[in-house]
Amino acid sequence: MNTNKNNRIPQKPLINIRLSDKKDAVIILDQRLLPNTIKYLELRTIDEMYDAIYTLKVRGAPAIGVFAAYAFYICCQHIEVEDKKYKSDECNQIAEKLKSARPTAVNLAWAVDRMLAAHKSGKDLLCECQAIHNEDIAMCKAISEHGLTLLKDGDCVITHCNAGALATSQYGTGLGALILGAERGMKLRAYVDETRPLLQGARITALELMNAGVDTTLICDNMVSAVMQQKTLRQISAAFVGCDRVAANGDVANKIGTSGLAVLAKHYGVPFYVFCPASTFDKSCKTGADIVIEERNATEITELYFKERIAPKDIKCFNPSFDVTPAELITAIVTEKGIFAPNEV
Amino acid sequence: MNTNKNNRIPQKPLINIRLSDKKDAVIILDQRLLPNTIKYLELRTIDEMYDAIYTLKVRGAPAIGVFAAYAFYICCQHIEVEDKKYKSDECNQIAEKLKSARPTAVNLAWAVDRMLAAHKSGKDLLCECQAIHNEDIAMCKAISEHGLTLLKDGDCVITHCNAGALATSQYGTGLGALILGAERGMKLRAYVDETRPLLQGARITALELMNAGVDTTLICDNMVSAVMQQKTLRQISAAFVGCDRVAANGDVANKIGTSGLAVLAKHYGVPFYVFCPASTFDKSCKTGADIVIEERNATEITELYFKERIAPKDIKCFNPSFDVTPAELITAIVTEKGIFAPNEV
Repeated sequence: MNTNKNNRIPQKPLINIRLSDKKDAVIILDQRLLPNTIKYLELRTIDEMYDAIYTLKVRGAPAIGVFAAYAFYICCQHIEVEDKKYKSDECNQIAEKLKSARPTAVNLAWAVDRMLAAHKSGKDLLCECQAIHNEDIAMCKAISEHGLTLLKDGDCVITHCNAGALATSQYGTGLGALILGAERGMKLRAYVDETRPLLQGARITALELMNAGVDTTLICDNMVSAVMQQKTLRQISAAFVGCDRVAANGDVANKIGTSGLAVLAKHYGVPFYVFCPASTFDKSCKTGADIVIEERNATEITELYFKERIAPKDIKCFNPSFDVTPAELITAIVTEKGIFAPNEV
Repeated sequence: MNTNKNNRIPQKPLINIRLSDKKDAVIILDQRLLPNTIKYLELRTIDEMYDAIYTLKVRGAPAIGVFAAYAFYICCQHIEVEDKKYKSDECNQIAEKLKSARPTAVNLAWAVDRMLAAHKSGKDLLCECQAIHNEDIAMCKAISEHGLTLLKDGDCVITHCNAGALATSQYGTGLGALILGAERGMKLRAYVDETRPLLQGARITALELMNAGVDTTLICDNMVSAVMQQKTLRQISAAFVGCDRVAANGDVANKIGTSGLAVLAKHYGVPFYVFCPASTFDKSCKTGADIVIEERNATEITELYFKERIAPKDIKCFNPSFDVTPAELITAIVTEKGIFAPNEV
């Protein structure tokens, strides 16, 4: 049925990150403007790169890693000195600045450190950042193939935030199985929660899943319980989310709201799957308690999507960007290497 | 500490509903414009009354009941006929139209039916609607006194939607204990979730609690789990919510998101209290499954607070206005008659 697919013919996916043809700039899709405006930005300076990550023009843990690799390449290219020691200091500073833009995403630090190591060992930085990008594409495809084994025709998945192609390189992590399944003609349905404060679900996931041909329904974050209660009409087969960091005990940090979704999934008997590349595993974190949770500006809450004040003047806000979902609420973690119980991490 | 109370001196509460001095109109505070604008509206016609309920200019189950009583009085006053049969038909039509504006709120039907019965038995309608209002004030005070026995100095309550004086007559139901406690000099804290799609938490509850002198922090709906996880820094003593209808088995219908909050409260061991007048009990509903849940327009989700499109064109939405919290998730129901276990209803 056409109406099952939001009356939309599957569209070509948008490209979130690439090098300019002259290889002197990173070109990104400004994801803050979706879904109303498709606008690309050319970035050259370290301040532009930092700002792109911090203000979420580029977002999604794997995509931030890919972007940071290109950003490191472009910024280091601009250091026009012969003094090797000085150049290395500059590169270190660029790396530190990039890594500080979002402390919770482990892929960011991972990609920057890999570029820094390539620089120190004299590798070609262009090849290295392109390798990181290509590896991410292959990883997402592999994650999506493994994820697809969890789905059958007619299934309905609930998802949170955005873990699609725009958060990664292709297909995505949490959304990859749905997008790949739809590509292969499966009839799949999805409930997308809007994901306040920055509405990545409403703005980006809804767009990606509709474009892929998945029958997509948007809800507010507080409607998840009402949807899961409806065992017949809207039966949810599983919850699929991405993640920003996995601790050694299987605890997972992901977008704020993920742990609440996991508690609800457990209560209503819905399997809860986390999708991520293996590079998201951080053995230096024993448990979720060791993960630094970024807190962001109150205005993200009080000024609805940066436009209009919707809360009283002087109100205090708590605006954590992530939360930790304990391993016991997670059915399995899906990576490019296969599907693992959280305690197998 | 001043900063604990959002730097605000306790303010006089706003009046949500009253008759005009000439007793020829209902004057209401337009709650859609809060907290930025304080604007009062004079309503006279049945269409204005219906619209005020449907578009949430007046809102909150008890307040809708009080408003509907005044609305019935004003609209029936305008029927200038001597033919008693015709007048009764007109009154019946006014009653039906008022009741249809929000099907889930039992107080609306209760108040309208009481006014209709008063009309049929020849009672003074002005006295009857003023009696309903005064009874509501007394009920809210009694609910708040009972609720206050659940709180001690330093406690921190999490709440959802708005169950304060603006949703009732004075003090409120779910917020009444906090407001009364603050009035008596207790140091109380509150976490307020914003309550999408129409943001009654951010816009109204935050304002009422700050004005009352409660140390108030605003969060998005999906941050409840993250707050409840923090057992030390932000320890939550209890969850307090209002409600729109209680079924005979103790299941409770309230603003969408309430059942999710209740599941999280149970998971994290936080007591979950529902506050309402006894008139909210509906013995004709055996269980929550018998409660009609109003679904509202998709644009409430897709056009953030009616201003700007934030979701793709053609996206399907599910926008239930209420959900049902099963009795087993409720610690107790607080009414003007005391505190009851849900199975004592």
